[in-house]
Amino acid sequence: MRRKSLSEEKCPVARSLDIIGDWWALLIVRDALAGVTRFNDFGRSLGAAKNSLSTRLKTLVDQGIFEIRPASDGSAYQEYALTLKGRALAPVLISLAQWGTAHAFKPGDPISPFVDKKKKRLLKKIELKSSDGRVLRTSDIQWLSGLD
Amino acid sequence: MRRKSLSEEKCPVARSLDIIGDWWALLIVRDALAGVTRFNDFGRSLGAAKNSLSTRLKTLVDQGIFEIRPASDGSAYQEYALTLKGRALAPVLISLAQWGTAHAFKPGDPISPFVDKKKKRLLKKIELKSSDGRVLRTSDIQWLSGLD
Repeated sequence: MRRKSLSEEKCPVARSLDIIGDWWALLIVRDALAGVTRFNDFGRSLGAAKNSLSTRLKTLVDQGIFEIRPASDGSAYQEYALTLKGRALAPVLISLAQWGTAHAFKPGDPISPFVDKKKKRLLKKIELKSSDGRVLRTSDIQWLSGLD
Repeated sequence: MRRKSLSEEKCPVARSLDIIGDWWALLIVRDALAGVTRFNDFGRSLGAAKNSLSTRLKTLVDQGIFEIRPASDGSAYQEYALTLKGRALAPVLISLAQWGTAHAFKPGDPISPFVDKKKKRLLKKIELKSSDGRVLRTSDIQWLSGLD
């Protein structure tokens, strides 16, 4: 599909997808939030070949989602660490996790839930709220298309 | 990048991305939430060629995110309508919109905000909460990687 230049779009969803709009980007961020820092570990987690993973990580560094730093253990390895911009993707991951949990598993499928560390329970379902705190239904939101 | 079979993953983020993990899918859902129903209008919004858009919409119908129905105006057109499973993607879109608004615009860039219909104000920033209502920081969540 021909890709409009999403990087100039006025829609913030489109801009985000221009940066993280391929499946691997958010899985790399997920792994990093879980503590993965090393190239080979990202590769094992994603089942990715070295050259393509290298390109992907470089893109995420260029976008300011990851930064490269020396290994924390003093070894010669480099570590990939999420920036604040990268960590700010947590709500995107949790909203995807909640949608997937509700709509992408058959009964009995094994599932790795995201829980809070303290209580080890599933997070509360995300609520969309107005600036003054009203819970909004999908139909209460003024959605804009690419034609608006 | 070689793609692991995400459709069998136990991680709900991976499962979601297997279904909607390409930039165009969520933009089609965005447009539908904004009221777009017709093939040609999705095409104009996304700048997409007919054949590729057709493939994409078929995928979304196969996944149960859209359904095809006769045009509501009685004409010979078909309409693409979101299912409940499709509408349930609203939190994913809003979390992407909020991240994009904060991290993907330069000062002065025009932006199309998503507001609530009643007050016309930006939605409240999504909060991640535990099942008992505590607001969670990213570090309060037990993230799992593909290696866990």
